[in-house]
Amino acid sequence: MPYVNPQYLHFADALPLQSGAVLREYDLCFETYGTLNADRSNAVLVCHALNASHHVAGEYEGQSKSQGWWDNMVGPGKPIDTNVFFVIGVNNPGSCFGSTGPMHPNPDTGKVYGPDFPVVTVEDWVDAQARLLDSLGIDTLSAVVGGSLGGMQALSWTLQYPQRVRHAVVIASAPNLTAENIAFNEVARRAIVTDPDFHGGNYYAHGTVPKRGLRIARMIGHITYLSDDVMNERFGRQLRDAIVANAAEPPQQRPYRYSTQDIEFQIESYLRYQGDKFAEYFDANTYLLITRVLDYFDPASRFGGHLTEALRRATARFLVVSFTTDWRFSPKRSREIVKALLDNKRDVTYAEIDTPHGHDAFLLDDARYHGVVRAYFSRVAATLGR
Amino acid sequence: MPYVNPQYLHFADALPLQSGAVLREYDLCFETYGTLNADRSNAVLVCHALNASHHVAGEYEGQSKSQGWWDNMVGPGKPIDTNVFFVIGVNNPGSCFGSTGPMHPNPDTGKVYGPDFPVVTVEDWVDAQARLLDSLGIDTLSAVVGGSLGGMQALSWTLQYPQRVRHAVVIASAPNLTAENIAFNEVARRAIVTDPDFHGGNYYAHGTVPKRGLRIARMIGHITYLSDDVMNERFGRQLRDAIVANAAEPPQQRPYRYSTQDIEFQIESYLRYQGDKFAEYFDANTYLLITRVLDYFDPASRFGGHLTEALRRATARFLVVSFTTDWRFSPKRSREIVKALLDNKRDVTYAEIDTPHGHDAFLLDDARYHGVVRAYFSRVAATLGR
Repeated sequence: MPYVNPQYLHFADALPLQSGAVLREYDLCFETYGTLNADRSNAVLVCHALNASHHVAGEYEGQSKSQGWWDNMVGPGKPIDTNVFFVIGVNNPGSCFGSTGPMHPNPDTGKVYGPDFPVVTVEDWVDAQARLLDSLGIDTLSAVVGGSLGGMQALSWTLQYPQRVRHAVVIASAPNLTAENIAFNEVARRAIVTDPDFHGGNYYAHGTVPKRGLRIARMIGHITYLSDDVMNERFGRQLRDAIVANAAEPPQQRPYRYSTQDIEFQIESYLRYQGDKFAEYFDANTYLLITRVLDYFDPASRFGGHLTEALRRATARFLVVSFTTDWRFSPKRSREIVKALLDNKRDVTYAEIDTPHGHDAFLLDDARYHGVVRAYFSRVAATLGR
Repeated sequence: MPYVNPQYLHFADALPLQSGAVLREYDLCFETYGTLNADRSNAVLVCHALNASHHVAGEYEGQSKSQGWWDNMVGPGKPIDTNVFFVIGVNNPGSCFGSTGPMHPNPDTGKVYGPDFPVVTVEDWVDAQARLLDSLGIDTLSAVVGGSLGGMQALSWTLQYPQRVRHAVVIASAPNLTAENIAFNEVARRAIVTDPDFHGGNYYAHGTVPKRGLRIARMIGHITYLSDDVMNERFGRQLRDAIVANAAEPPQQRPYRYSTQDIEFQIESYLRYQGDKFAEYFDANTYLLITRVLDYFDPASRFGGHLTEALRRATARFLVVSFTTDWRFSPKRSREIVKALLDNKRDVTYAEIDTPHGHDAFLLDDARYHGVVRAYFSRVAATLGR
């Protein structure tokens, strides 16, 4: 694949939001891979989750290790084949990777939005994505695809713009968050908001970054992305300085340090590293916003909680994928979506992939998982105009 | 039951610790319920978990709502019947409810221990408890009982003092922590340690309390004490101000607030309340210490990870209890203990209680759970001298 470049589009028309607020004007940052065919029927939109971006696939020129977050899935000859499909990645408003977000100036005041950036929703994001497609001259998506929060966007596309989506691929997702999911989000938010460097969300003006809170938020997140199994397999109770004398032998452990603050176990080292890395690049206000996007999504709520009724509007064909050890968005939640679609006599393919990797599995290169997605997109490709 | 009173004993002999450090002198705070019989054979030691204390049962005079943390289990006519047994509750060293801990003066310096309180272990605690029994003139325990971290102490009793324990009751416990358990402890510790009010553990001298960190720690803890099921049942996606018009109808929800910082969902309100309450009474250095007590416990580690070999020394009879929805100390972990005991041909009763209440179940009044404990202690009572 040739090097890729992010592109920007300015939208001068206000975007009305579910909250009643509006985003008066905004930029969207996006990337495309592959070529739009003559009848504009081969477009695939990839929706990102909490901390990803428009940079789905490929590399940036002169930047090694700049592969997109789903480079194992999207590209020439890959399961979502850019020799066949025209794939679009877009950064959602409120995020911190190029599209208008909390660190940008509010056109009403000329000052940085900070904590005043309006609370957006999955539905708002889908509306913004639909306008991007309008600008690109794409009426109908061959497919909309996403994992986790991205899967919520894919599902919402089929409800908000049923005529504009032929296929929806919903991976490791759920029709809404459980109380436990919301609880984890809330703890992460409290860690950020109560960090003295947060300054009520106006940390940009104070020249600070609430890194303590971001680190805690990311550590909590990471625990929920992994399964108990994979954590035991990768880290177990290994001490940080375990001495591996012979790869065939279990590592010989030095005695404990007996410290409450030093790193003792490998898992602690791993989590601290992940937290530190995240705090260097992720925006705290964005973290608050996007966890709320997750919390608020609940298409059944306007139908008295009846998901079957909520999904009646969907006319797309669906691929739904879940992972056995994903306890953040468990297979049970995917099956709820499948059941509601089947109740409506929709065309659904469902795959429950047996993997130890927990929620993270949707980003990983698992042969059975990729095989299912590849097979599905081959079927989609067979229906394309030339 | 008459009102109860905490008692204190001073120990002038140094307690050697696993770390190689010593606790030069210390006080233990404890309570007793019931009467020691003539041949001193009816003593039952109850070991506490992370945030509980010596105050197991009964009430303090003039203090309403002062019931002990296991008052539903221990008392006259209760499953652990104080008309039959002489029950002892003891606060462990390093805790913050009366026994010597980080907020007390270090006899070597005359200054408050703070972060210099030595890191203690389950084994150290059991040693301290054994000395308390010596002082009380009790050679052999009829039973040692505990849930969670308390169960680890009960198990360790049978390994450290096999001749002094006739029965061990190990509830909702594990032979060691998994990587995921350690991970949750580590996030909680980082939240405390990185709170600017922590001052490296010397917050007493600064007149501060790291409440932000304690709140986060407790919120994380609470999520792991409950099951996904019970959280969905008790809180679900209910909004904080849901209007319940008719108890038979689902509560009518007002629209979202669309706020990242205000409380939106009931579960958020519950967690913040639990965090606030905890930060008012629990000591931060103690939290660090006790989570490390949990992390470090691993009796199989000195036997190359072979639990069966580690438990060979145990001669007590066992009751092991787990709860189906406990994902912090899952039934699988209890079964490991049971298997290792059976491998050694020990006498084990095992009960896996079907309950939605997660790890918290060990503290709750469940008829089947209490029935099992009651039946077991009736059997123990039948073997007592008069």
